[in-house]
Amino acid sequence: MMDILFLGTSAGLPTKARNVTATALLEAQGKGWYLIDCGEGTQHQLLHTSLSEHALRGIFITHVHGDHCYGLPGLLSSAGMKGRTEPLTIVAPRGIQAWIEAAIMHTQFFLPYELKFVAVEDFAGDTFGEFSVQTVSLSHRVPSYAYVFVSQHIEHKLQVEKLLAAGVPKGPLWGQLQSGHDVVYQGTSFCYTDFVTSHQRQFKAIICGDNDTPELLDEAGKDCDVLVHEATYTEEIGLLKAHYGHSYAAQVARFAESANIPNLLLTHISSRYQDDITHSPSIADILSEAQSVYSGHVSVVRDFERYRLDHSGVVTLVPADH
Amino acid sequence: MMDILFLGTSAGLPTKARNVTATALLEAQGKGWYLIDCGEGTQHQLLHTSLSEHALRGIFITHVHGDHCYGLPGLLSSAGMKGRTEPLTIVAPRGIQAWIEAAIMHTQFFLPYELKFVAVEDFAGDTFGEFSVQTVSLSHRVPSYAYVFVSQHIEHKLQVEKLLAAGVPKGPLWGQLQSGHDVVYQGTSFCYTDFVTSHQRQFKAIICGDNDTPELLDEAGKDCDVLVHEATYTEEIGLLKAHYGHSYAAQVARFAESANIPNLLLTHISSRYQDDITHSPSIADILSEAQSVYSGHVSVVRDFERYRLDHSGVVTLVPADH
Repeated sequence: MMDILFLGTSAGLPTKARNVTATALLEAQGKGWYLIDCGEGTQHQLLHTSLSEHALRGIFITHVHGDHCYGLPGLLSSAGMKGRTEPLTIVAPRGIQAWIEAAIMHTQFFLPYELKFVAVEDFAGDTFGEFSVQTVSLSHRVPSYAYVFVSQHIEHKLQVEKLLAAGVPKGPLWGQLQSGHDVVYQGTSFCYTDFVTSHQRQFKAIICGDNDTPELLDEAGKDCDVLVHEATYTEEIGLLKAHYGHSYAAQVARFAESANIPNLLLTHISSRYQDDITHSPSIADILSEAQSVYSGHVSVVRDFERYRLDHSGVVTLVPADH
Repeated sequence: MMDILFLGTSAGLPTKARNVTATALLEAQGKGWYLIDCGEGTQHQLLHTSLSEHALRGIFITHVHGDHCYGLPGLLSSAGMKGRTEPLTIVAPRGIQAWIEAAIMHTQFFLPYELKFVAVEDFAGDTFGEFSVQTVSLSHRVPSYAYVFVSQHIEHKLQVEKLLAAGVPKGPLWGQLQSGHDVVYQGTSFCYTDFVTSHQRQFKAIICGDNDTPELLDEAGKDCDVLVHEATYTEEIGLLKAHYGHSYAAQVARFAESANIPNLLLTHISSRYQDDITHSPSIADILSEAQSVYSGHVSVVRDFERYRLDHSGVVTLVPADH
């Protein structure tokens, strides 16, 4: 019902394996996608995916720190050079607008499309394509926000026993009824409303900026299907670095457990944690710390990993498209 | 006598194979280096080289276009996160200073070292480590500059016949004399000034910003050992795109030929020219067009290629360090 593709998963500094933060949220239908944060090099990461700047429907910036926004001027100007003409909305802290306007003024960059800035400080929620979007204020060294994306999907279910009892044979007719068309079989009309029940199901993903207090997501976490949250450190190091305003794995996982959130994707990993699990500390330490206090599905994500939230609310890793 | 390491060689847009513009100039001695232009992703490129942000001695920006400067905020803040405390001089158009100051103000980035901005518009030349640096005004859609780097090296040459006649045996004593030390052999003193002649040799590299009029380098081109210049297009396409303010290969090569510049390194290649020489157009077209009108050494450079200007004024490709 939505895909989340990680374009950058490193905290603060890029590494050879991980870029700084950027996350793509893809609509279930079509090619539309949304970008949450845009660290330097995000446009370069896009070159290795099937995402196009033309199908980008909106940008959401969680906070003003450079590792979450320094890719914006390049991505915006490259989209223009590639011929984008569609207006683009950016929900972001006010400082981002001021800084982009400084780029436009001082670096002579011409955009052949309209940028619509929405100050996240004033953002009361809005609809973007198939998503309704809300924010939650987090706690970090600067104001930081989570974006809550909710989509509604209507599931049409065939009443199989009723169809069999009525003598409608399994096959194309069933498909026509399920997709909302009446059918005629052997001279008899069958109305789809008699054989199909419709259920509305809500899907909720929360994608967070830097945050040292996961409990701030208590209210938004209700009915959340998947939480994307930073886990910059393991507990031992996180406690030493508390003044940086980040979370550690066990802290986020404990919150997700208490909030009954079934899927947890941990990102924004300090570069001290290497992908090589024979190195200490490694990202395996982040994962095992989270697993020790959390019973849901948890992954420590990597660049270019694409996760799918399916119609039953399950999150799985799907094949990368790069 | 100096190395030039290309960190980005694509015009306007990054590609999978080439980043946007950035060029490193390395001192002959030690680890000191200078950065000329800093497109987005330059700090990422550095991760694949032996260059460190700590040994960066100065930054020179040729013009305000984003593909030459959008890597600055990230590189500067990452250098701070990695512990740089040494002040850093940036010679750049005034707009760059205004934009970086906007980044510092609006994105809360704290630098633990001093940035010293020098407006290139007022720059009358200065010395940076072993280089004296001058500028040349170029012609582009916005004010654009070439940076002229000159280093002086003193070559100490042994007078071999005189040494043999004096009976000083070949070996360590010759080395001591050559490095400016007097020696004693079998009770006799030998003064190095009697056996060593010293010649001062000047080395000049010109690294240019975007430019549609190579002839502006006429004066600076005298005694130039190596010219690094854009060749965004081949002639056919360049003539169609003249309003963009770029040069094409034959145009630059004709100038280098007329100015007797022995080494020409062409960069800032439009992404339409692919590295795959079976593709049309390819970078091979840029190279052959330049070679057709130029008798010196010419290369169309690639990311991470490192060229050495040696003591005899010859430029060669040296093994990459990534």
